[in-house]
Amino acid sequence: MPKLLVTLGTTPGGIFETFENLKRGNYEAENHPPVHISEVYVIRTSDPAVNLAWKLVKAVFACCGGKEVTIADIPLEINDINSKQDFLTFKRAIKARLSPGDFVDFTGGRKAMSVAAAIEAREAGAKVVTTIIPQQEYVRITNLLNSLKGQESAVEAGGRGECVLSFCDLVSKESRTVQLY
Amino acid sequence: MPKLLVTLGTTPGGIFETFENLKRGNYEAENHPPVHISEVYVIRTSDPAVNLAWKLVKAVFACCGGKEVTIADIPLEINDINSKQDFLTFKRAIKARLSPGDFVDFTGGRKAMSVAAAIEAREAGAKVVTTIIPQQEYVRITNLLNSLKGQESAVEAGGRGECVLSFCDLVSKESRTVQLY
Repeated sequence: MPKLLVTLGTTPGGIFETFENLKRGNYEAENHPPVHISEVYVIRTSDPAVNLAWKLVKAVFACCGGKEVTIADIPLEINDINSKQDFLTFKRAIKARLSPGDFVDFTGGRKAMSVAAAIEAREAGAKVVTTIIPQQEYVRITNLLNSLKGQESAVEAGGRGECVLSFCDLVSKESRTVQLY
Repeated sequence: MPKLLVTLGTTPGGIFETFENLKRGNYEAENHPPVHISEVYVIRTSDPAVNLAWKLVKAVFACCGGKEVTIADIPLEINDINSKQDFLTFKRAIKARLSPGDFVDFTGGRKAMSVAAAIEAREAGAKVVTTIIPQQEYVRITNLLNSLKGQESAVEAGGRGECVLSFCDLVSKESRTVQLY
């Protein structure tokens, strides 16, 4: 069964949308059969803002229809991509975990992370996808994210299935997932 | 002689810095010999904000030490990457222009543009670079860019070598160029 490997930045950025759109076969590609994903690998830095984004991803899956999915947290010991060394750390973490037929979503994180994820996907025989949301949805979700800052313990509870905040409003109903390679 | 192919978004975003850092051999790579670039290809959309960024790139090269470089403008008939079709238009434009040994700088533009540029570079045997500037320099340059809005005719004059505005302040002296592949 293919897994979904994603890069994560400071916002949960469309990971759940990608998961759902793949599941429904609702994505742009020559062939777009429904894809059942049971494992999501989240590759990310250890920056504090990214830690929070990770907790939000977990809460969204637990509260909005992805409770059965195993979400693996893969935090690297870097805070950003500031050098070739950081880039290599990131690239190796991706390369080591990819199998042919997997899906890679590069939507989140720094551009150099996206580039590493997409190139390694291509070289491993995995598929490359991204999820786009309209600008007004981006603004709405950014405002919502700002309102969630400082509520870290409620967000952590969300990850355990205690859905006390409106996590599902972080998901856009107007997303589009495109398979690029 | 290798050329430099770059993606461009709404800011001139480090293209001149990449050019200069390559010329001086001042970039992170296993081997980093000086690279003389005489041609820069700018692949971009036709969004109005991107049109202005293109004029600024021309002005910076003309006024800040790159007058001898041929800069080729390659505007595509799309305003953004909103679909698989837009992506393919962008990808094909890059693929058609790459030769082995070229340098590709993916720093500017949308993430999907960067991914297309980096993957096509890799498949054509070209090198993949990006240029990083410190956050405070990013803020300084963004403010300067905002102050240049509405001065389009002076910017166009810059491209003809009439350097009436402080175009060279758009160049960061603290940039770092990294070769990723």
